Amino acid sequence: MSSSVIVYGGNGGLGSSCVSFFKKYGFWVCSVGWKENVQADANVIITKLDSLEEQYHEVAEGLKEILSGSLVDGIFCMAGGWVGGNCSTEGFIKSVDIAIKQSVWPSAVAASVSSIYLRSGGLFILCGSIAALDGTPKMIGYGLAKAAIHQLTASLAELDSGMPPDCYVITLLFGTLDTPMNRKLMPKADFSTWTPLDFINRLLLDWIQGKVRPKSGSLVKVMTINGRSECMPCTA
Amino acid sequence: MSSSVIVYGGNGGLGSSCVSFFKKYGFWVCSVGWKENVQADANVIITKLDSLEEQYHEVAEGLKEILSGSLVDGIFCMAGGWVGGNCSTEGFIKSVDIAIKQSVWPSAVAASVSSIYLRSGGLFILCGSIAALDGTPKMIGYGLAKAAIHQLTASLAELDSGMPPDCYVITLLFGTLDTPMNRKLMPKADFSTWTPLDFINRLLLDWIQGKVRPKSGSLVKVMTINGRSECMPCTA
Repeated sequence: MSSSVIVYGGNGGLGSSCVSFFKKYGFWVCSVGWKENVQADANVIITKLDSLEEQYHEVAEGLKEILSGSLVDGIFCMAGGWVGGNCSTEGFIKSVDIAIKQSVWPSAVAASVSSIYLRSGGLFILCGSIAALDGTPKMIGYGLAKAAIHQLTASLAELDSGMPPDCYVITLLFGTLDTPMNRKLMPKADFSTWTPLDFINRLLLDWIQGKVRPKSGSLVKVMTINGRSECMPCTA
Repeated sequence: MSSSVIVYGGNGGLGSSCVSFFKKYGFWVCSVGWKENVQADANVIITKLDSLEEQYHEVAEGLKEILSGSLVDGIFCMAGGWVGGNCSTEGFIKSVDIAIKQSVWPSAVAASVSSIYLRSGGLFILCGSIAALDGTPKMIGYGLAKAAIHQLTASLAELDSGMPPDCYVITLLFGTLDTPMNRKLMPKADFSTWTPLDFINRLLLDWIQGKVRPKSGSLVKVMTINGRSECMPCTA
């Protein structure tokens, strides 16, 4: 049987590039997202956007039907998004709510799904933020949601977390990603500091193949300077 | 005019002791909670438990009516609660949802309210957790929610956070509190390591009076060993 991965957020900028990349390398790929990714071998479509528990049941039932008992080698939670606002901003509370739904919900559901469908020794990936290692006064909701994911990483890597044995849990911390959406929103930015999506996809491919894999529980900064990307494990 | 504080979570174990304590010291006290605290001078009752935005509007409108333009010296967010479960636990997703609603929602609403009703130089208090400074594999939802609050503290203490000028934002990190509920749940525990509520209330009184106040943005561990409590600023 070929290797297999689940890409959670498989229709976002990073997620859809990840689906294409792993398909190219011969993987069986299941996308979980709010719309279909036609390149994926299978899709779970999320329609429950207002209740974490309902969203979880929708995803768990979709995967149960698709996987019918088989396990996957990797689960990559590429879902996320950015939202700004300080605590005196008119939409502050909405920004906190959105950030939790965009980042914490998918990460928690993906963790739960991993406890069921990830094989022993498999790879579980989450997305954090370099900025959220410190205070983020102008994007408070975003920062607190990402910090929650950083701590979730530490929890999942420990014994008794409920993850399958010998799994690798790694959280990627980005600066700005070179996605089509970011190009559209910031057409005049300095792209030499933006990280190409395939740099990230290649990292995941190496790690799932057991190459130069950081220890489980690592937060790994992905930085791009003068068009050159590198990754750097750090602690929270 | 006498000094005034808002106790968010004013009907919980810690919150209600805080209301009584500050009343005893002559403060005007407003309680925000899901039921009335008869000792408080004013109450905002939270009935919206399923929507963060609705909860925010309920609290903001309640305070607007009660305060009618005046500012308070301190806002203490004592709301919280504990919930266990690892990522393979049956109720894991529910535990994440509860932890976010118990800890992150009140902290975010209290921060928003502080940007409007806290005076310049006032004191804003949040509740974190010593355990959540590291991974918390057996109480994953609780740990990630508390880690979000720790990062929120760092954000709020920075310039441009939207907090009124010169405010002190401090998050308390507890071990086990000596509350009536904990005594009931753990009757055979070693109480000499539990922190008495009045130790915490006295800290808040000192800080609001400008005594031995840690710098804004501090996470302050409150530890009790052999019946002796002390506090210790730390970094996340």
